[in-house]
Amino acid sequence: MKKIGFIGTGVMGASIVKHLLKAGYAVNVYNRTKSKADEVVALGAVWQDTPALVTKASDVVFTIVGYPQDVEEVYVGEQGIFSEATPAHILVDMTTSTPTLAKKLYQLGKDQGIAVLDAPVSGGDLGAKNGTLTVMVGGDQTAYEQAAPIIEVFSGKMNLQGPAGSGQHTKMANQIMIAGTMVGMSELMVYADKAGLNVEKVLDTVGGGSAANWSLANYGPRILKQDYSAGFFVKHFIKDLRIALDEADKMGLTLPGTALAAQLYEQLAEAGFENDGTQALIKLWWHSGKPEA
Amino acid sequence: MKKIGFIGTGVMGASIVKHLLKAGYAVNVYNRTKSKADEVVALGAVWQDTPALVTKASDVVFTIVGYPQDVEEVYVGEQGIFSEATPAHILVDMTTSTPTLAKKLYQLGKDQGIAVLDAPVSGGDLGAKNGTLTVMVGGDQTAYEQAAPIIEVFSGKMNLQGPAGSGQHTKMANQIMIAGTMVGMSELMVYADKAGLNVEKVLDTVGGGSAANWSLANYGPRILKQDYSAGFFVKHFIKDLRIALDEADKMGLTLPGTALAAQLYEQLAEAGFENDGTQALIKLWWHSGKPEA
Repeated sequence: MKKIGFIGTGVMGASIVKHLLKAGYAVNVYNRTKSKADEVVALGAVWQDTPALVTKASDVVFTIVGYPQDVEEVYVGEQGIFSEATPAHILVDMTTSTPTLAKKLYQLGKDQGIAVLDAPVSGGDLGAKNGTLTVMVGGDQTAYEQAAPIIEVFSGKMNLQGPAGSGQHTKMANQIMIAGTMVGMSELMVYADKAGLNVEKVLDTVGGGSAANWSLANYGPRILKQDYSAGFFVKHFIKDLRIALDEADKMGLTLPGTALAAQLYEQLAEAGFENDGTQALIKLWWHSGKPEA
Repeated sequence: MKKIGFIGTGVMGASIVKHLLKAGYAVNVYNRTKSKADEVVALGAVWQDTPALVTKASDVVFTIVGYPQDVEEVYVGEQGIFSEATPAHILVDMTTSTPTLAKKLYQLGKDQGIAVLDAPVSGGDLGAKNGTLTVMVGGDQTAYEQAAPIIEVFSGKMNLQGPAGSGQHTKMANQIMIAGTMVGMSELMVYADKAGLNVEKVLDTVGGGSAANWSLANYGPRILKQDYSAGFFVKHFIKDLRIALDEADKMGLTLPGTALAAQLYEQLAEAGFENDGTQALIKLWWHSGKPEA
């Protein structure tokens, strides 16, 4: 059984590590803030002081950290993964990061005979907890096949999307779609409220037909309970939308809906809500988080 | 058993009339273009030469026509419904029209003791064919309860949303949501294609998770088959979005996502695609209707 390294034991990472431990894997962990690894260490994961030491002790190293610069630090920093990686390793970055960085890490690996996959996930905290994450993989087929049995432990759906960077591009496509549902849902709800309708009844009526979508079904009821806690942070969604727009720009592609969503979410962050969940977009209209009609 | 009048035997209306005939109702029909009523007349509906004559021969009169001005003509025109309507009648407009006109017709009726309901539908041609339309009703409870057993014949979901105009407002909320999913879906697909991904595989991967929505599931595969036939016409969606934006404007509400969608669909109509289905939005990027990467 392969020894696993896991770097990044935040909300998502910790849930994934628990699934790996439960499946019987030995897991070496590292996290920038050590205390956030306490829970999984108590369950049997082994703490290592640096990404390099995690790598030395493991066969397959997963990373899920915050921003592309964190990914870069963890891979190519002084105590980084690459300082100890060998051709026997498989490295899997699950952070939602740039396709450009994914290709760079893949090439860095390839030059030394080391397989690197980009494998961002969707499904949020609940998907991680339930082991049903959607995993979108970019890289070589052989490495994908070797990593797949491990990924299956915490995934409900997994596909090799294409060469290095394709996992990240697929995740961007996913976020572009969600930009549309979040803006549409917010405008639906503020309109219904202002028109004097019973918003809950409207969600019930329209939610099962051609307007049906995951955001409406999951966030609509939370908004009506004024629950703006983060399943997924506003600040992270802004990061994702900016990556998507940068990549689109490089391809000569204009995405006006995504650009509008990025702009609205930036307004929301500027108003102080960057640590709310993405459903807080409605606060651009409902400043108190409550219906206003 | 109540005698039914049905004005507007287009794609939606004809399917609904068939369900009513099958349920055993006597149905009197009128349509501006007479030939479009031939099919239902052959199945047992009785042709009447004017909306007034339909009303004279019926207890409950349904209308589903094109634009608000058509609704006005059918109700208050010289040979219109109101010229023959009595307090024994119930009038039900299922056209997607303005909340303002719905309230006006309600008041006109009320002044003469005649019940008028606004009851726009969603679910499209397929929902009409299968008798599973979502019906969003505005008006008085008593009239709603009297019309409900008839509406149930062709509806999968039905709610009284509130007073006159509330059905139309709910339909607008529905269309505002769809504006978001259609823009998001189009941008997702052009991005995925331009990034060199297999678009079909991307739809499969992201379509079951937090990006899931009805438009993606139903229109995504049709776009990949270059099927731009109209389940729902671009020109009718533009009408709906304009009504939603006008109503929002009256309420002092800014809906930037809906405004963007209206603008994009107007560009599409100007490019000559007003009689395509709404999934043709992607032609703003894929001018030939095909992937370009």
